[in-house]
Amino acid sequence: MTVFSYEQLFSFTEKIFLSIGCSEADANIATKALIAADMRGIDSHGVARLTGYVRLWEAGRVNAKPDIRIVHETPSTAVVDGDAGLGLVVAPFAMQVAIGKAKKAGTGWVSVRNSNHFGIAGYHAMMALEQDMIGMAMTNASALVAPTFSVERMLGTNPIAVAIPAKEQPAFVADFATTTAANGKLELLQRKNAETPYGWVQDKEGHASTDANILKKAGALLPLGSDREHGSHKGYALGSIVDIFSAVLSGASYGPWAPPFPAYVPMPENMPGEGLGHFFGAMRVDAFRPADEFKQHMDNWITRFRSAKPSEGHEKVLIPGDPEREMEIIRSKEGIPLVDSVVAELKTVGQKFSVVL
Amino acid sequence: MTVFSYEQLFSFTEKIFLSIGCSEADANIATKALIAADMRGIDSHGVARLTGYVRLWEAGRVNAKPDIRIVHETPSTAVVDGDAGLGLVVAPFAMQVAIGKAKKAGTGWVSVRNSNHFGIAGYHAMMALEQDMIGMAMTNASALVAPTFSVERMLGTNPIAVAIPAKEQPAFVADFATTTAANGKLELLQRKNAETPYGWVQDKEGHASTDANILKKAGALLPLGSDREHGSHKGYALGSIVDIFSAVLSGASYGPWAPPFPAYVPMPENMPGEGLGHFFGAMRVDAFRPADEFKQHMDNWITRFRSAKPSEGHEKVLIPGDPEREMEIIRSKEGIPLVDSVVAELKTVGQKFSVVL
Repeated sequence: MTVFSYEQLFSFTEKIFLSIGCSEADANIATKALIAADMRGIDSHGVARLTGYVRLWEAGRVNAKPDIRIVHETPSTAVVDGDAGLGLVVAPFAMQVAIGKAKKAGTGWVSVRNSNHFGIAGYHAMMALEQDMIGMAMTNASALVAPTFSVERMLGTNPIAVAIPAKEQPAFVADFATTTAANGKLELLQRKNAETPYGWVQDKEGHASTDANILKKAGALLPLGSDREHGSHKGYALGSIVDIFSAVLSGASYGPWAPPFPAYVPMPENMPGEGLGHFFGAMRVDAFRPADEFKQHMDNWITRFRSAKPSEGHEKVLIPGDPEREMEIIRSKEGIPLVDSVVAELKTVGQKFSVVL
Repeated sequence: MTVFSYEQLFSFTEKIFLSIGCSEADANIATKALIAADMRGIDSHGVARLTGYVRLWEAGRVNAKPDIRIVHETPSTAVVDGDAGLGLVVAPFAMQVAIGKAKKAGTGWVSVRNSNHFGIAGYHAMMALEQDMIGMAMTNASALVAPTFSVERMLGTNPIAVAIPAKEQPAFVADFATTTAANGKLELLQRKNAETPYGWVQDKEGHASTDANILKKAGALLPLGSDREHGSHKGYALGSIVDIFSAVLSGASYGPWAPPFPAYVPMPENMPGEGLGHFFGAMRVDAFRPADEFKQHMDNWITRFRSAKPSEGHEKVLIPGDPEREMEIIRSKEGIPLVDSVVAELKTVGQKFSVVL
């Protein structure tokens, strides 16, 4: 484990993005989005992914100089073609389009095709907060999840993020995979040689499993709810809605045809659309009631929930976004710890472009 | 158990709504929304609730002649004040506003205050389908659900419905409570004197429980995910988003202050808003891509998911909405079975107004 400052990781990452041919503006935008994940403690989606992005670029699947553009629009909607750019660049573009639409029409909704992995959904949703807007972000992803009653993997972990501004209180920021546990949690257990709890994964025949390596053995992640009796059909529905809003609305590749993140995995055959899909929303709070009034009530909502009587062994009831915000405070003081395998990978990719970590 | 035809229940229910003073148009609208639940097999939200609505009217909490009106709007948003009307009447009004906005601006989003229980969310979301729109409906409800780490009940079962049109295939219709199990499932188990599975409820100290009567003993329903290890913080976030979109955006009463459905339960003190809140959305499919193209891809999505390899003991993988649609076909042929206690209650309320079931 080595600890890096925000500035160290930022500078390194930005240079790598410049090295693969990104413009200065795009390298900066992508780096901000990527390191936000490390700062918020979502280590699986931060610089640990940088090597993967470079490999996708090497494989010709990421376009470092994309012509990102609106291909269809109405007063409150748009479809954006990401031109195979980094999702870390395409997503902020599309979210700005949603915010711009909301300024005029009250809300803005943007579906994106022909993109790539966009980092953490929460970062993009939170762009709306400073405009006194509610922000939403979701994305489809390569199929690792088996719907209820299925042994086949049909959906990605398809996260949903919703960011809602408050007044004195910190914003409400939900950001979660529509599975019981995100893939990053399996990776943590693999490193420790530990098992998963029941309800996270199933084996290739659809039987309950606790094997943290089961995805390498044709097993699958389970939708939020784990099994039918505990509501997995609801998690399956949520993941499906994310897939349809992100990819069927935009013309991206959906369901089992979503492009895989690892560059060595061959692309699915007969893809019904282009690249990954995302979906963004921005709703101006004052399109519903005066912004100050809304934010005062959000403060009241947050304060009341935070003061709910906690159950035994728990100090307090949390508000969505609390753990990530607390981690951000800690890491801005103490730096970002990276495990040795990630540091080694980053050094290797750095050598390729003569960039020192 | 007695079996009734759709027409029998429709005629009886409509007469009851007329008897409490609803206009002919409103009685018709409310009856359609209510019986849709029975037809789709969601028995807890159909005519079984009629007696409850009448009691709310008797308690002065339902206004049979509401002046439902838009109190604020932008090109793509509106806030509707339900004037304490039946949710069964207020919700279709608000959904029509959303659809009207979508026709002009691409999408329409309506938050509703000062309403009451609106039946099943799916019915309202499905109103968008015939316009080639995606429909969304959600509502807050009185607090029965304990957030992760809480022993206090802070949220309702807060359902989310999303209806998405297809071409030859039937529409995708997700409609689910953001809890592991809806309250109606507990009621079924109570009647059978059966226990719940672990993960559905907790007792008043926050300990795991299998007691189907636990809500009467200050226990609570659990958010989708059941416990922290299985993602209950995600179900808690979803229920919170529904509460905030439905009630904080509109000025309805939120969180633990949402008004209770049973008329004998006293109203919470210091309510921060008026009545229950709902949230509706309509997105024109062709605000994103040509409607026919979208619907063809939805057919492809549905067909592919339905043909996913099923796990042992299951015939096929279902699409959200399949079970309810199949039930609707059966009940339109064979009628709607009602348990004796519901029939007795309906007969009693009928006698009050000289309406015969």
